[in-house]
Amino acid sequence: MLTAAVPVFGADAPARRLRGNAPVRSPEVADRHVTFRLRADKANEVIVNGQWPNGRASMAKGTNDVWSVTLGPIEPGVWEYSFQVDGLTMIDPGNPAIKPMREPRTSILHLPAQPPALWDFQEVPHGVVRQHAYLSKSLGRLREFDVYTPPGYDVQPDTRYPTLYLQHGAGDNQATWTVHGKAHWILDNLLAQGRAKPMVVVTMDGHAAIPDGTGNQNNTALFERDLLEDVMLFVEVNYRAKPEAASRARVGLSMGGGQSLTIGLNHLDRFAWVGGFSASVPAADAVAGALRNPVATNRKLKLLWIGCGKDDFLRQRNEDFIALLKAKGVQYEWHLTDGNHSWPVWRGYLAETAPKLF
Amino acid sequence: MLTAAVPVFGADAPARRLRGNAPVRSPEVADRHVTFRLRADKANEVIVNGQWPNGRASMAKGTNDVWSVTLGPIEPGVWEYSFQVDGLTMIDPGNPAIKPMREPRTSILHLPAQPPALWDFQEVPHGVVRQHAYLSKSLGRLREFDVYTPPGYDVQPDTRYPTLYLQHGAGDNQATWTVHGKAHWILDNLLAQGRAKPMVVVTMDGHAAIPDGTGNQNNTALFERDLLEDVMLFVEVNYRAKPEAASRARVGLSMGGGQSLTIGLNHLDRFAWVGGFSASVPAADAVAGALRNPVATNRKLKLLWIGCGKDDFLRQRNEDFIALLKAKGVQYEWHLTDGNHSWPVWRGYLAETAPKLF
Repeated sequence: MLTAAVPVFGADAPARRLRGNAPVRSPEVADRHVTFRLRADKANEVIVNGQWPNGRASMAKGTNDVWSVTLGPIEPGVWEYSFQVDGLTMIDPGNPAIKPMREPRTSILHLPAQPPALWDFQEVPHGVVRQHAYLSKSLGRLREFDVYTPPGYDVQPDTRYPTLYLQHGAGDNQATWTVHGKAHWILDNLLAQGRAKPMVVVTMDGHAAIPDGTGNQNNTALFERDLLEDVMLFVEVNYRAKPEAASRARVGLSMGGGQSLTIGLNHLDRFAWVGGFSASVPAADAVAGALRNPVATNRKLKLLWIGCGKDDFLRQRNEDFIALLKAKGVQYEWHLTDGNHSWPVWRGYLAETAPKLF
Repeated sequence: MLTAAVPVFGADAPARRLRGNAPVRSPEVADRHVTFRLRADKANEVIVNGQWPNGRASMAKGTNDVWSVTLGPIEPGVWEYSFQVDGLTMIDPGNPAIKPMREPRTSILHLPAQPPALWDFQEVPHGVVRQHAYLSKSLGRLREFDVYTPPGYDVQPDTRYPTLYLQHGAGDNQATWTVHGKAHWILDNLLAQGRAKPMVVVTMDGHAAIPDGTGNQNNTALFERDLLEDVMLFVEVNYRAKPEAASRARVGLSMGGGQSLTIGLNHLDRFAWVGGFSASVPAADAVAGALRNPVATNRKLKLLWIGCGKDDFLRQRNEDFIALLKAKGVQYEWHLTDGNHSWPVWRGYLAETAPKLF
């Protein structure tokens, strides 16, 4: 079992000590001023590209081949940033906080607000994020999903909970809504403020089709099978999740918003709460059943929440979808807000919608 | 709440479609041959550096500025690799599987074996990995730890479990033992084979001192406080963990091995099972109490397991520590094995030691 001779790969630290290279601290936060650093001896140009306003800045090469720049004051928030080294976009290798993505090139800079925001860690009772790997029977391969359980879940064995199925966008994966979206802290904080009901939250990997570069037109159909036949079954056997439509919400953002609107509106017997954040809204024929009989649809739907930012590239498609719902007589809540196609908007949308659920 | 105008940061996918750049697939696995790819238009040299034998190879620039190389056959395993772009070491941005590290520069290539190895996902009952963030009272700041609960934990509310406190090395963090070490799958598989008892496993962040580049001589003392006063208390209140020494193990690797031997041997009233994998073994005076009275030490210790690879740079220090234990009359198990200071060795050590616990 321990036979393979392998190169010394874990021994980086002593090797570095011998070279005399201390670790490069990045990002270093002092109040709201942040210093970014990268050691790159052969680079000609190093840029930090941050999501905060005016977040793009050149870094300058100093001693010991370390490039750096100090920016600020930066507004509190959960911000994304990347380094661009001679045009190559990459994470900050000094920062363990990485946005979970299919192509990870983005680091996280979390500057808590004072007083704290809903997406900041606060001293309140906390839930738990539980990681599951599973062999999907629908898809025939190993996949992952996460489950947030609210504070007290383990000590109230007779309580059953409603479930929010919460979906990420095209670039992300099952971990993004918690690691970067801070969904677990948003719910902990809302709950502590008495503004939301305790709920279980399930975040799946929205990429059900094996990526092949073609766009995977059948991804939503494959995802639907995996959701309905594998994950929901697992969740309702292994968690104390209430097994009826009135206790299930199907919500997502961008690509996951399209999945949620499509699957939700086609399965109102399973989901009474449906939401799309900056959604890749479905074509009319993909939700024809729900549009055909608005009386039945409205009777089953407890909430159809659709939001999009004024500067979002999907704004027009969302407005067209809203016009379609209106023409057909399907009830909805429409929120045209400030913002574009980005996580600061989506954290806000979760904070707006979670109090309306269940 | 949704007021900040931010640059379009989540809209990478449509922008890329406009540029005509399809995602770059990396790593692409076909049987045991693996193709690595990176788009880098200005690079002069791109190298893949893998942990498997003969894992270092130059990549060649092809069409569309994509560098690539196909290697293999590569032996099954959970391997580390990095790209080196003009000397800058970085993760493979095509691969979402990243080794959790304080300075993330390492991707994971997991090639399951046939028949599957203990660290491969198998169709057996699975436990759950639960993520906790906490405000450490000992350290006064936000930290994280993970808890593995074995299969059946949630459906056997009257069962209490022994607890393995399992610690990573200097470069890593609380997530590394599961994401990269596959500790959860090793335990699931051992349990399914009837070779280990069901246990709870706690993995903490071993860096208790705020990193300041000085080496933090008091890190072990700070970590001990956080372990004993914050995390163990939390675990034994919130999990059904048996609260006595005979049901607690303190095991770790490298830096975490030093922490485990030091804290374990100084707190035999709390931990009856102690282990060091390729450990930064403590100095004699750091465990003087246990050495002073070997009769009492041996009576309390159910197992002192120490292992190190023949090619490990810490071999001599481990052999010196074993000689010290022998001279003082403290009982131990000593395993000088093949291998060096690396994760293939440590997965094997966990597979060897877990069956001996509890």
